[in-house]
Amino acid sequence: MKIAAFGEVMLRLTPPEFLLLEQTHSLRLDYTGTGVNIMGNLAHFGLDSYLVTTLPDNRIGDAAKANLRQLGIHDTFIQQNHQHMGTYFAEMGYGMRPTQVTYQNRHSSSFGQSDETGYDFSQLLETVDMVHICGISLSLTDETRRAAQALAKQAHQQGVKVCFDFNFRPSLNTEENKLQLMKEQYQQILPCCDLVFGSLRDLTDLLGLTVKEALPKEEQEKELIQRFMRMFELEWFAGTKRKQVGAVKELTGILYTQNQVVESMPKTITILDRIGTGDAYAAGLLLGYCEAWPLSETVEFATVNAAVSHTIQGDVPLTTREQIQQIMNDPTIDLIR
Amino acid sequence: MKIAAFGEVMLRLTPPEFLLLEQTHSLRLDYTGTGVNIMGNLAHFGLDSYLVTTLPDNRIGDAAKANLRQLGIHDTFIQQNHQHMGTYFAEMGYGMRPTQVTYQNRHSSSFGQSDETGYDFSQLLETVDMVHICGISLSLTDETRRAAQALAKQAHQQGVKVCFDFNFRPSLNTEENKLQLMKEQYQQILPCCDLVFGSLRDLTDLLGLTVKEALPKEEQEKELIQRFMRMFELEWFAGTKRKQVGAVKELTGILYTQNQVVESMPKTITILDRIGTGDAYAAGLLLGYCEAWPLSETVEFATVNAAVSHTIQGDVPLTTREQIQQIMNDPTIDLIR
Amino acid sequence: MKIAAFGEVMLRLTPPEFLLLEQTHSLRLDYTGTGVNIMGNLAHFGLDSYLVTTLPDNRIGDAAKANLRQLGIHDTFIQQNHQHMGTYFAEMGYGMRPTQVTYQNRHSSSFGQSDETGYDFSQLLETVDMVHICGISLSLTDETRRAAQALAKQAHQQGVKVCFDFNFRPSLNTEENKLQLMKEQYQQILPCCDLVFGSLRDLTDLLGLTVKEALPKEEQEKELIQRFMRMFELEWFAGTKRKQVGAVKELTGILYTQNQVVESMPKTITILDRIGTGDAYAAGLLLGYCEAWPLSETVEFATVNAAVSHTIQGDVPLTTREQIQQIMNDPTIDLIR
Amino acid sequence: MKIAAFGEVMLRLTPPEFLLLEQTHSLRLDYTGTGVNIMGNLAHFGLDSYLVTTLPDNRIGDAAKANLRQLGIHDTFIQQNHQHMGTYFAEMGYGMRPTQVTYQNRHSSSFGQSDETGYDFSQLLETVDMVHICGISLSLTDETRRAAQALAKQAHQQGVKVCFDFNFRPSLNTEENKLQLMKEQYQQILPCCDLVFGSLRDLTDLLGLTVKEALPKEEQEKELIQRFMRMFELEWFAGTKRKQVGAVKELTGILYTQNQVVESMPKTITILDRIGTGDAYAAGLLLGYCEAWPLSETVEFATVNAAVSHTIQGDVPLTTREQIQQIMNDPTIDLIR
Amino acid sequence: MKIAAFGEVMLRLTPPEFLLLEQTHSLRLDYTGTGVNIMGNLAHFGLDSYLVTTLPDNRIGDAAKANLRQLGIHDTFIQQNHQHMGTYFAEMGYGMRPTQVTYQNRHSSSFGQSDETGYDFSQLLETVDMVHICGISLSLTDETRRAAQALAKQAHQQGVKVCFDFNFRPSLNTEENKLQLMKEQYQQILPCCDLVFGSLRDLTDLLGLTVKEALPKEEQEKELIQRFMRMFELEWFAGTKRKQVGAVKELTGILYTQNQVVESMPKTITILDRIGTGDAYAAGLLLGYCEAWPLSETVEFATVNAAVSHTIQGDVPLTTREQIQQIMNDPTIDLIR
Amino acid sequence: MKIAAFGEVMLRLTPPEFLLLEQTHSLRLDYTGTGVNIMGNLAHFGLDSYLVTTLPDNRIGDAAKANLRQLGIHDTFIQQNHQHMGTYFAEMGYGMRPTQVTYQNRHSSSFGQSDETGYDFSQLLETVDMVHICGISLSLTDETRRAAQALAKQAHQQGVKVCFDFNFRPSLNTEENKLQLMKEQYQQILPCCDLVFGSLRDLTDLLGLTVKEALPKEEQEKELIQRFMRMFELEWFAGTKRKQVGAVKELTGILYTQNQVVESMPKTITILDRIGTGDAYAAGLLLGYCEAWPLSETVEFATVNAAVSHTIQGDVPLTTREQIQQIMNDPTIDLIR
Repeated sequence: MKIAAFGEVMLRLTPPEFLLLEQTHSLRLDYTGTGVNIMGNLAHFGLDSYLVTTLPDNRIGDAAKANLRQLGIHDTFIQQNHQHMGTYFAEMGYGMRPTQVTYQNRHSSSFGQSDETGYDFSQLLETVDMVHICGISLSLTDETRRAAQALAKQAHQQGVKVCFDFNFRPSLNTEENKLQLMKEQYQQILPCCDLVFGSLRDLTDLLGLTVKEALPKEEQEKELIQRFMRMFELEWFAGTKRKQVGAVKELTGILYTQNQVVESMPKTITILDRIGTGDAYAAGLLLGYCEAWPLSETVEFATVNAAVSHTIQGDVPLTTREQIQQIMNDPTIDLIR
Repeated sequence: MKIAAFGEVMLRLTPPEFLLLEQTHSLRLDYTGTGVNIMGNLAHFGLDSYLVTTLPDNRIGDAAKANLRQLGIHDTFIQQNHQHMGTYFAEMGYGMRPTQVTYQNRHSSSFGQSDETGYDFSQLLETVDMVHICGISLSLTDETRRAAQALAKQAHQQGVKVCFDFNFRPSLNTEENKLQLMKEQYQQILPCCDLVFGSLRDLTDLLGLTVKEALPKEEQEKELIQRFMRMFELEWFAGTKRKQVGAVKELTGILYTQNQVVESMPKTITILDRIGTGDAYAAGLLLGYCEAWPLSETVEFATVNAAVSHTIQGDVPLTTREQIQQIMNDPTIDLIR
Repeated sequence: MKIAAFGEVMLRLTPPEFLLLEQTHSLRLDYTGTGVNIMGNLAHFGLDSYLVTTLPDNRIGDAAKANLRQLGIHDTFIQQNHQHMGTYFAEMGYGMRPTQVTYQNRHSSSFGQSDETGYDFSQLLETVDMVHICGISLSLTDETRRAAQALAKQAHQQGVKVCFDFNFRPSLNTEENKLQLMKEQYQQILPCCDLVFGSLRDLTDLLGLTVKEALPKEEQEKELIQRFMRMFELEWFAGTKRKQVGAVKELTGILYTQNQVVESMPKTITILDRIGTGDAYAAGLLLGYCEAWPLSETVEFATVNAAVSHTIQGDVPLTTREQIQQIMNDPTIDLIR
Repeated sequence: MKIAAFGEVMLRLTPPEFLLLEQTHSLRLDYTGTGVNIMGNLAHFGLDSYLVTTLPDNRIGDAAKANLRQLGIHDTFIQQNHQHMGTYFAEMGYGMRPTQVTYQNRHSSSFGQSDETGYDFSQLLETVDMVHICGISLSLTDETRRAAQALAKQAHQQGVKVCFDFNFRPSLNTEENKLQLMKEQYQQILPCCDLVFGSLRDLTDLLGLTVKEALPKEEQEKELIQRFMRMFELEWFAGTKRKQVGAVKELTGILYTQNQVVESMPKTITILDRIGTGDAYAAGLLLGYCEAWPLSETVEFATVNAAVSHTIQGDVPLTTREQIQQIMNDPTIDLIR
Repeated sequence: MKIAAFGEVMLRLTPPEFLLLEQTHSLRLDYTGTGVNIMGNLAHFGLDSYLVTTLPDNRIGDAAKANLRQLGIHDTFIQQNHQHMGTYFAEMGYGMRPTQVTYQNRHSSSFGQSDETGYDFSQLLETVDMVHICGISLSLTDETRRAAQALAKQAHQQGVKVCFDFNFRPSLNTEENKLQLMKEQYQQILPCCDLVFGSLRDLTDLLGLTVKEALPKEEQEKELIQRFMRMFELEWFAGTKRKQVGAVKELTGILYTQNQVVESMPKTITILDRIGTGDAYAAGLLLGYCEAWPLSETVEFATVNAAVSHTIQGDVPLTTREQIQQIMNDPTIDLIR
Repeated sequence: MKIAAFGEVMLRLTPPEFLLLEQTHSLRLDYTGTGVNIMGNLAHFGLDSYLVTTLPDNRIGDAAKANLRQLGIHDTFIQQNHQHMGTYFAEMGYGMRPTQVTYQNRHSSSFGQSDETGYDFSQLLETVDMVHICGISLSLTDETRRAAQALAKQAHQQGVKVCFDFNFRPSLNTEENKLQLMKEQYQQILPCCDLVFGSLRDLTDLLGLTVKEALPKEEQEKELIQRFMRMFELEWFAGTKRKQVGAVKELTGILYTQNQVVESMPKTITILDRIGTGDAYAAGLLLGYCEAWPLSETVEFATVNAAVSHTIQGDVPLTTREQIQQIMNDPTIDLIR
């Protein structure tokens, strides 16, 4: 199965050794983004993966493209135009000190300035079996909104599966009336989707759905999510839950079909790099979907994949199938020769 | 409120990535010291902070001064003279391996060779509302002893608050008869002080005070400390306690007034860099003092500040008000975008 | 004499050890810009220097501000607003391979989005004796154009000297009709100026002046420049010339008054970092101007300062007075203890 | 007491900051191997230690030799010949992600190509009181097998103690019939040995011994090991046990004599670098043996030494006697000044 | 035009900042080899380029493959087998101190152990229009000799152009009778070749051809080379000449057809990294060949490309067409914005 | 022949990549000193070399000792006492910008505080055939003066050759009456010396000798030096001369016997690291002396050695015999495989 993601590539600039920005003149440079993370991980799992994006038509764009190829992502559907990449700084947290992300301007990025007219979606949809679209494209600019909606619609019409990630960030949507625009955008894209990543809060706060308070507490979430799934004829709805007991952090993966809920065993996590771990969960699920694994095996694999991705520097989960299965088999091994 | 600290600036040389000195040709260079740490932190909290010190009159002194400005500390009262900065090496600990500090010669430093005649204390005391003096000045050289005593006395006379940190280190006072000299020095400075940082052991071992054994065990410490406070008419006496349960380390902050004892909730700590965490507690308390916060809020803030400072590289606690309050509000958040 | 510069602060991201962007995940981070460079150098010469700019109101803006203070620049007139800093990548050249600069979006930077209404020019002009304005502000956005023109006009009215740097870059002015707009902007600001940095080509290509072909070849440039100076009642007009003989590169500094031309001895240059060397020449001249040195001494100092700045990493010329004078006295010394 | 180890020196190449091989162009270079690790640790404990090995006769061999001297190991018995050093890559694990070791070719290394004819064992055995031989020499090549057997035999004949480490790795012995060859090799060397490091599994899987099922479960291991010890007239047989409870890892050291079993208290371990920790246990035991400490003190020291070695970068346990004793006295101290 | 190279990928390990091996624990890791260098450069020129090689079937092989993709090389014909990559250390020279290369074992590398049976030459030769074969394959092992000869023969038969690089290194051929074997190998492959890179010395010392002493001195080389070209029906024979006058080094490119000699202008070179510069010359020539440029333009471009490649870290010439043409147009430009 | 040097070991702290102190938080750490440099180089030439010094009795002293062993220097006569090492910062020059050395306090170093009573000179002088004493010991402290004089005297009495390096630095001798003290110290030690490194200026400015003006200009230096040599019965007096023509720097070595003057060919030098190059000249000469080479060969070798040492990072000339001879044979080679 071949899969493509439509989304932005960003520069991530990270001070080394948990230093703060004001403490260093040295930064680690990575090329990231939800699409990069998921496609990079799927490529490491052995799938043919593509990124559909616009990079700057200059040396930093060239370098970004080279790095995507290095991750194993095909560069066939990457165009280069304009001069700007979105950037963010990541001051890595430690213990009780959270990781602090500072975004630079994203609206004027090459990706943000590119609408559907530049991309060859027809060619793309002849090549792949699934496209992944990140909700951030709906928040970013008119151009990216148009491009994302066009791609979702065209894919859905041609029978190419659409996987959509809510990825709704209030911080990207603080302008007046933006929330209403976002609601409309999400309502427009959802009928084209097959698989959706999100949370209960996305459904209530963004889409305005409400839980049935009459139901027993423990069934409310399930009922609402499956109601939502039926509303848009979704195959899968998935997400993770985080819990902290003392200093111990736990991660649990959940997957809904219209009539099932599958939940992983909770995994204790140790954090080296917190960013991109949700994308690792998505990549794990998509692998199971593409290869039609049993649901519980899929969720378990995806959750371990997400847990392990906390221990890898950078956004991109560079895990392999063998590595995750080995950890699932014996999670106490700490040295492999 | 404006505040100044009188104290030494030292070079800290740290091997990267938890390496030992013998394992590396690469060192991280920082400019530290109790005064630097507290003033740097208060500057990050938004206070006007000054350092009163002597740096070498050469390129390393220039670089040190530039770095103090970078921390937000005003360089108005920094003089440059002589050619030497005190230096220490910090081999960073990990897990059960403690951080190992190795000091180089401090007596012949520019600060150590400078007495009260070079500083313009009058101008200083017209500028600031409080001065912080670190007890290490009393241990170091005759010159620094004279300078510290003169500053404390003059400040007290002019109604500028004096905050004093015992910071008594046996390792700096191993010469014969040094202990007696130290006792006299501390007894001389204390009548000029308003706020004091220290521990029970400072009062018993250095000053020779004794607990009233007749009292119930749990009241002995309180009685002794408040007796000591009345003796020298102190407003505040403060310190922290550390406890280890299994591999879990906890930190608790305590603050005494002459008739109250306020204690923080214990905080679980994760250690990236152990050095300077006491100074973070002091800076937190001083912020509350300067802004007349309720005592319990002050101690809680200061203790979280100290706990977070364990997770920041270097001695200087580069925390902000917003960051500490955010962690106090939700200590489980591990990613902020 | 106190001096301020109005201009943008940019992030400079440089791969280490002459590597190309595609070869590295490590970047050196510096905070630069014409104003930063000149003010930083003047602060190293002992002058009180200020930067008038807008930095992002976030952690990277905070870090930038801290770094400006470290350079010795007063941060009194720096405001923080919006969320973006202009960025450029510098792939350092070596031998025949030129340094390659790649700019990211500058229009949407915090500086680019800020017009005159946010700055307190009145307070500023009461504080300083001279303001430096970089022509890039005229190219950037409507907001920066308005701010620069307002500052120049107000300074001129209050008798504060205005130093203006043409710094006209065709690459920043490629839009249609932009050249005409630029010409008008330059013509509007020049009557407020006292000292101007530029080249013959700026006068001919941008302002449309023409040389008198009737004159002997060697007098044409001088006549045109001094005609231009009389037109706008300028005190000084200055620039540098570069010449390459075989692999040997030479730099010569030139300074015009309305009736004199002073030229330095040509200096052989070795390049470690080519960027910011024009600003070093400007800083040297301004030092001589502020301290009323003889013209020939001023030009000689400024040219050596520019030559030495080629051997210092980063844009900012971190030279000192003593260092430049020592090299002027004995340029063959290669080790100072 | 003087001690020598016979064994290979390998290049260890480690990406910095827990990065994966594909994420970095930067590697840390170390010179390691069981013999290096144990001799380096013993030298740090103050013993005269020697390595008997063959390094390449080129610049990397020279660099390796220099680094062994730096560790405190005498280079008297190191010869240089051929052109190749064995190499391995260590991708450092974090949390649940195990450290991943990738070996390059070891058979064609200078050590692997050298048999007993090049070494001056006679001179060696006049110099030292004990030789340590690592079982990997028996797995590697015909040349190293011959050299190891010759050394063990000659040492035993001359009354020099022989310490042997099973270090049997199935991954080095995957060829057909290799297991039988290995069994013969081990059976040939064991009669020459006095101290042996190994595990129950070595005795059952490699040597084919079987537990007496009739015995109570908890006595089976002890009986088998002491039976084995009597079989080969061994003084000591020693090893460690690892246990994981939740995320907490524990290490326990065990030492058998022919009629005693001594076990340490279990130590909680935190892992910075997992490799070489078994060698730290061996070095601790050998120190106790050489200085005839009580058995329980020896095992306790060795186990703490092994636990601390998990917190030191690189294979070589660079611990000192004072450091280990200090941690044994107060394991909660996290800062030493 | 599509082009493939058959050859080894090696690990290059380089100390940073011109340090020697014994001075550092830090190494830069690159993936190089004649084929990598030429294909990487051609990919940067915009050609579809492939590498035909065998990488280890482990994590270092995976990382190597990822890095080849990053360079723009297609990985379609790369197989993974065995466990070893050839390695070399490069201690970078400076001024009069030459760069020192130390090779590790190459014979047992995955490439060295792979003969023609593993590769799919048929598929390859249907895909590309030219194959490049490096003479080192003839020196290395029986397996690589067989593979190289088979590929050359099959390509020649199918009308795919064969480009061959003598690359004869005495240091790889020191065994007895090796020279005779080499002569036979070269004689066997040459009839299949169209383009050859080499030097006069290759023809005389390896193949045993002799100059016609009767000819004028200045015609002897030309006559011999063109005689050799006729002997094997070659289209092109090419190489470079180096000359040093004082401290100034010059490079000149030369290209022979059967009836022409084209020579570039001599280029002054500055050395940052000396390795791989011959491959840059080859890549430049091949670009001209593939696009049928005039000969003199081809040689000039190739020579500038080689000269610039001396200023780029690493073996791989990461030059672009635009960059080389820009330097050809104005070699004095040292800053491009 | 075995040789020892008596002298101080210093910490050298160097910013990377030609950065200035104020630009970096990263420093390279090296252990240097005249004795270290010469002994380290001689060890690389294959001589048995020893250092006689006092290092701090702490972890930085341990690390220093380990590094000396790494250089190949025997640590037999190194004692550890007190707590301080002298330190200097080296801001590396580039082109016309000179290297700037900033010394920290040296008087209170472990070496500076140690007199002759701690060293075992008798044992030392039984071991070695020559001792090298650096004049800095005469400038430093009373303790080092006494130690140096005692060693020189005792060596001379026992027939062990004494090699003395004037190394007179006005910057270390600025106190009042210090020059007179120095003159006496030098006059006291010279009768014990056999080989002396120095310059004409040392003889005139420090010792107060005067040239015979009556002689032809070109013979004055020779006459004075040989007169001085006869005065103290010296075998050799040697030094180097530096000349700069345009940007080209040249180095020439000179060696006097009582009746001969031998001068090397001038060598063009390229500077990577200027420090320690005089010591490289000394080491080259001493090698020739120890092995009784012809004088002209000795001077030529030593001068090339000094020239090459300019291209090696750090003070210690890590050259080998083979390397220098190869460069002498063909100075144009820039790549060795």
